[in-house]
Amino acid sequence: MGFKLTVNSARRATRTLWLLMLVSLSVCICVCRASSPEDDSAMENIVTEKKAEESHRQDSADLLIFIMLLTLTILTIWLFKHRRFRFLHETGLAMIYGLLVGVVLRYGIHVPRDISNVTLSCNVNASPATLLVTFDPEVFFNILLPPIIFHAGYSLKRRHFFRNMGSILAYAFLGTVISCFIIGLLMYGCVMLMKQVGQLNGDFFFTDCLFFGAIVSATDPVTVLAIFNELQVDVDLYALLFGESVLNDAVAVVLSSSIVAYQPQGDNSHTFEVMAMLKSFGMFLGVFSGSFALGVATGVVTALVTKFTKLRDFQLLETALFFLMSWSTFLLAEACGFTGVVAVLFCGITQAHYTFNNLSPESQDRTKQLFELLNFLAENFIFSYMGLTLFTFQNHVFNPMFIVGAFLAVFLGRAANIYPLSFLLNLGRRNKIRSNFQHMMMFAGLRGAMTFALSIRDTATYARQMMFSTTLLVVFFTVWICGGGTTQMLSCLHIRVGVDSDQDNSMSIAEGSERRSTKQESAWLFRIWYNFDHNYLKPILTHSGPPLTATLPTCCGPLARCLTSPQAYENECQLKDDDSDLILTDGDISLTYGDITVSTDATGAHTSGGPAGALAGGATSEDLDRELTYGDHELVMRGTRLVLPMDDSEPPFTDPHHRLRM
Amino acid sequence: MGFKLTVNSARRATRTLWLLMLVSLSVCICVCRASSPEDDSAMENIVTEKKAEESHRQDSADLLIFIMLLTLTILTIWLFKHRRFRFLHETGLAMIYGLLVGVVLRYGIHVPRDISNVTLSCNVNASPATLLVTFDPEVFFNILLPPIIFHAGYSLKRRHFFRNMGSILAYAFLGTVISCFIIGLLMYGCVMLMKQVGQLNGDFFFTDCLFFGAIVSATDPVTVLAIFNELQVDVDLYALLFGESVLNDAVAVVLSSSIVAYQPQGDNSHTFEVMAMLKSFGMFLGVFSGSFALGVATGVVTALVTKFTKLRDFQLLETALFFLMSWSTFLLAEACGFTGVVAVLFCGITQAHYTFNNLSPESQDRTKQLFELLNFLAENFIFSYMGLTLFTFQNHVFNPMFIVGAFLAVFLGRAANIYPLSFLLNLGRRNKIRSNFQHMMMFAGLRGAMTFALSIRDTATYARQMMFSTTLLVVFFTVWICGGGTTQMLSCLHIRVGVDSDQDNSMSIAEGSERRSTKQESAWLFRIWYNFDHNYLKPILTHSGPPLTATLPTCCGPLARCLTSPQAYENECQLKDDDSDLILTDGDISLTYGDITVSTDATGAHTSGGPAGALAGGATSEDLDRELTYGDHELVMRGTRLVLPMDDSEPPFTDPHHRLRM
Repeated sequence: MGFKLTVNSARRATRTLWLLMLVSLSVCICVCRASSPEDDSAMENIVTEKKAEESHRQDSADLLIFIMLLTLTILTIWLFKHRRFRFLHETGLAMIYGLLVGVVLRYGIHVPRDISNVTLSCNVNASPATLLVTFDPEVFFNILLPPIIFHAGYSLKRRHFFRNMGSILAYAFLGTVISCFIIGLLMYGCVMLMKQVGQLNGDFFFTDCLFFGAIVSATDPVTVLAIFNELQVDVDLYALLFGESVLNDAVAVVLSSSIVAYQPQGDNSHTFEVMAMLKSFGMFLGVFSGSFALGVATGVVTALVTKFTKLRDFQLLETALFFLMSWSTFLLAEACGFTGVVAVLFCGITQAHYTFNNLSPESQDRTKQLFELLNFLAENFIFSYMGLTLFTFQNHVFNPMFIVGAFLAVFLGRAANIYPLSFLLNLGRRNKIRSNFQHMMMFAGLRGAMTFALSIRDTATYARQMMFSTTLLVVFFTVWICGGGTTQMLSCLHIRVGVDSDQDNSMSIAEGSERRSTKQESAWLFRIWYNFDHNYLKPILTHSGPPLTATLPTCCGPLARCLTSPQAYENECQLKDDDSDLILTDGDISLTYGDITVSTDATGAHTSGGPAGALAGGATSEDLDRELTYGDHELVMRGTRLVLPMDDSEPPFTDPHHRLRM
Repeated sequence: MGFKLTVNSARRATRTLWLLMLVSLSVCICVCRASSPEDDSAMENIVTEKKAEESHRQDSADLLIFIMLLTLTILTIWLFKHRRFRFLHETGLAMIYGLLVGVVLRYGIHVPRDISNVTLSCNVNASPATLLVTFDPEVFFNILLPPIIFHAGYSLKRRHFFRNMGSILAYAFLGTVISCFIIGLLMYGCVMLMKQVGQLNGDFFFTDCLFFGAIVSATDPVTVLAIFNELQVDVDLYALLFGESVLNDAVAVVLSSSIVAYQPQGDNSHTFEVMAMLKSFGMFLGVFSGSFALGVATGVVTALVTKFTKLRDFQLLETALFFLMSWSTFLLAEACGFTGVVAVLFCGITQAHYTFNNLSPESQDRTKQLFELLNFLAENFIFSYMGLTLFTFQNHVFNPMFIVGAFLAVFLGRAANIYPLSFLLNLGRRNKIRSNFQHMMMFAGLRGAMTFALSIRDTATYARQMMFSTTLLVVFFTVWICGGGTTQMLSCLHIRVGVDSDQDNSMSIAEGSERRSTKQESAWLFRIWYNFDHNYLKPILTHSGPPLTATLPTCCGPLARCLTSPQAYENECQLKDDDSDLILTDGDISLTYGDITVSTDATGAHTSGGPAGALAGGATSEDLDRELTYGDHELVMRGTRLVLPMDDSEPPFTDPHHRLRM
């Protein structure tokens, strides 16, 4: 892509930009200055209405600061992208701007000394009017994280994710637990040492150390993945990292809440007790599986609703329904005492795998764009808040020994996760995880939004405050240094870039037997899942797949006929006439029909059954391979496929948007 | 459009739907039941953490109820649309479902008697955990109304709006004030009567009556407009109604806050005092113009940023910036003490008029869809809350006399707005507002979201509670009866339906002189505006219009050169070669180029200057007419125009989405 930008206009743009930044920064500060003297007088004034109005104004001003920060970030990141600077991701930039505003707020504005004492006592429901730009920490968990996590699930690259499912699950579950305990133990050692030296001014129990281990085990390589995407790094590495980090978060959330729930009976708490530990472990399993089940359930309900109604004729209703159902997962999980964020993740994955195929092309676009936008805004909001909070948080406890210990522990914990597990996994895998991939995964263990949200949630005790301050530094370091050094690291480790994932595939398909063997290694876990998914779930939840009448035993005949979509039969009949190999040889365009979703108004002649419908009974390895290969394509190209002039005889003015709307 | 739905699948869809409704309704109720006994025990339990968790769960459950309600509404409204039932709009349906759930919550679940006493004292910041599904009334003003109002501004049909600007302003400003005072006076009479009869149990001052007049003067004919849109009712009538209702809201908000601010000095308040009244009047002017200025200012800043940067290369950044800037208007206005909702309205109008033209086609789509979705969700949320609150609000005061008086006053107030003003306007208009249009406007004076949000904002006093209860009934009546009777009313009044707005126009253009005279009537106010907008504002804020070097005096040469977009010159040069009449004769497709927005990667050959660039110095009546005529088209079709195969020689696979993304 070439930028048709004259030098002149680029220079003008840059000038405008900096001017705008200065203006908006000064606006921010003016607003703050204007509202802070009023706060002081409001403390005397007891009229509640007046106070509510004040606090509303203050809230507006606070939010305004962040919106200005985000606007600045957007403009600057545009400049960076425009000039192809890759060393700083938008989240890193958001942190820098947050830091700058934090410095101004901290040192530019006088804050009465006694406020810091007030804060501690009323931490949970305190009105933040008297503080500098503070949000209730629950905002992160209830408003900002859900769209981020949902988007991660919704945009999970399904093909490579499922291909590496075993390894990803190992890293995410075993790895996170290993990392949590290693970090916890190391930190406990560190805390013991600090006690000896006399550097510790408060309690710091082993459960606190474990809690710290859990929260810093949630990796968030958003910076790294953005660069991977741009440079087209090896898809398997991408899938391993992305999949691990996504599931990672879920495990860390539930793990940390289970650790908090560890309460031995009797007065002498903080000792080891088997019953309490088993209870915690049971809670971990219960909460995780409950959240998982809820997330999948709402996804399935949405898929069924979109399959059996013709909502796709009204895109606004369809998009609204999709959004509401996805949101309701979170609320349902929270209302039931499960973890909303985890439920939302699995809901996102289910929606992408099933519901997405039932949506109209326009709604597919709309939903993707909507969650992309929400993710972008929420992520940058969190990172700029992180920057800001380094200076505006009133109870920081920076302890050099603890910080050094934490950095070391985080490093070792990550190493103890990646290297041993990779070794074990390589024993089973034929397509080995090479050592340079392992180093890259080690290096890409950034900490981000989830770690921050977990650590800010409770800053009531001395131990938690120390953890919070240290966590902030860990996030800053990893995002700036590790995130910024990604391109260098990639070339250091000689990792191939510019790999076209489709080319990679068609090449592999041509290679034939070699490829099939690569497949078999990961297939043992996955073949069972694939067969079940392909034969039963896809036909029930979407319009694709073989008819259920063919896959279910005959005794279930009536049920199968009721659940199978009419399109499924059509596809099957059609496929018998067609040459099913067509799909592989017909170039890019027919690929979009790989995993068929028959549009309601399709003429029938266009709806190729695709490889998915080819073999109803049991899927062979090639079949499976093909479906995986084109699954992603579909995700990328479905939205635009109606635009492609498939048929030259079509009248030239048939605008798809118009047709769908009318 | 035909629904290719077999009878079988339709029946199945209906069955599925009703099953889903039952399931989700029972889920709702289970959640409520499950959480309400815990509330009672939580009152004894004082541990704050536990309490916070409880209240979070309760909040989640509350929100969940609404999401279920919205989901139900969406599914039912799909069924209605599917079967072309027009008598009930989705907002009306949302109210019905809200009512049903309200009944269940009210009579299905035991609420301790003494809670209603608690509520009164802690009205402002009370945690609603102990109440049935209640939200802080400020939620409506700060979260739900802004997207609704912004969307109204952003989707204002510009062409017909500007053509009828004089009349719309008259109805919105004069009309609302007249209506407010008429209703206020009538209600004062009614209240006096009630005092005589002894039906009044509390204070009810004249300012309260005026306040009531102000809040019920905000019309919200969303139901009517949806039907107008569907049936393609006369565009001028549409513009008058929509324009009036949009501005109406803004006037009513500021008017009501000015009335509240009326505080005569001394102990003997609630008497007439000139100074206090002047102060209120000054406040009205100040707040309205301040909000207006802020809204326009942020719109202008957004237009400048999108014009002078190449953000359009990155649609996500562009959409995010647009969203953030629009939101910041609201926050800025609130932080400065102005009215955010009013600012957001004018921001929306400015964004649609200028910024929209600078956005990339994809962002134009994205922003429209985003705000459409937000509007849909917020509107239905408010209406279902309205239904719910009829039964769950604890302090209703239903006074039959007051209610009858209010209905009468609302009717007379609307009549005193429409008929006298129409008579006066018709003296000046050549294109008279016919009497059947007047009756329709009278009939379409529905009350909706804004009236509700204003009345629920403060329910502390006896007078306010009575107003709130009465307002609810007014909204229900108008939305169901007037909204549901729209189609009948249209045919009763012999109002033409099925008017294609474009056909209407091309017809009028053909009629020539007759049309021009129609134009001149409204042009006196508007011609000044149009010339200024076309010669200075459009060229400064967008890429279209004549170059500023041609319109500004020569002394401003350097500034003009700096501000004029390079495309503006191109357009001008081009136009000299082209036949500018082409645009009128070339049919539908070239219309999309009416109000040119030159895309960055346009080849130049396609960018027709359009009528806007035709005459730089002074716009003739035809010129103005044409721009208005095609302005809307552009709004509707811009998003899809790249899809239209303008040029048969283009390679068939150039997908615009792909091109823009890469």
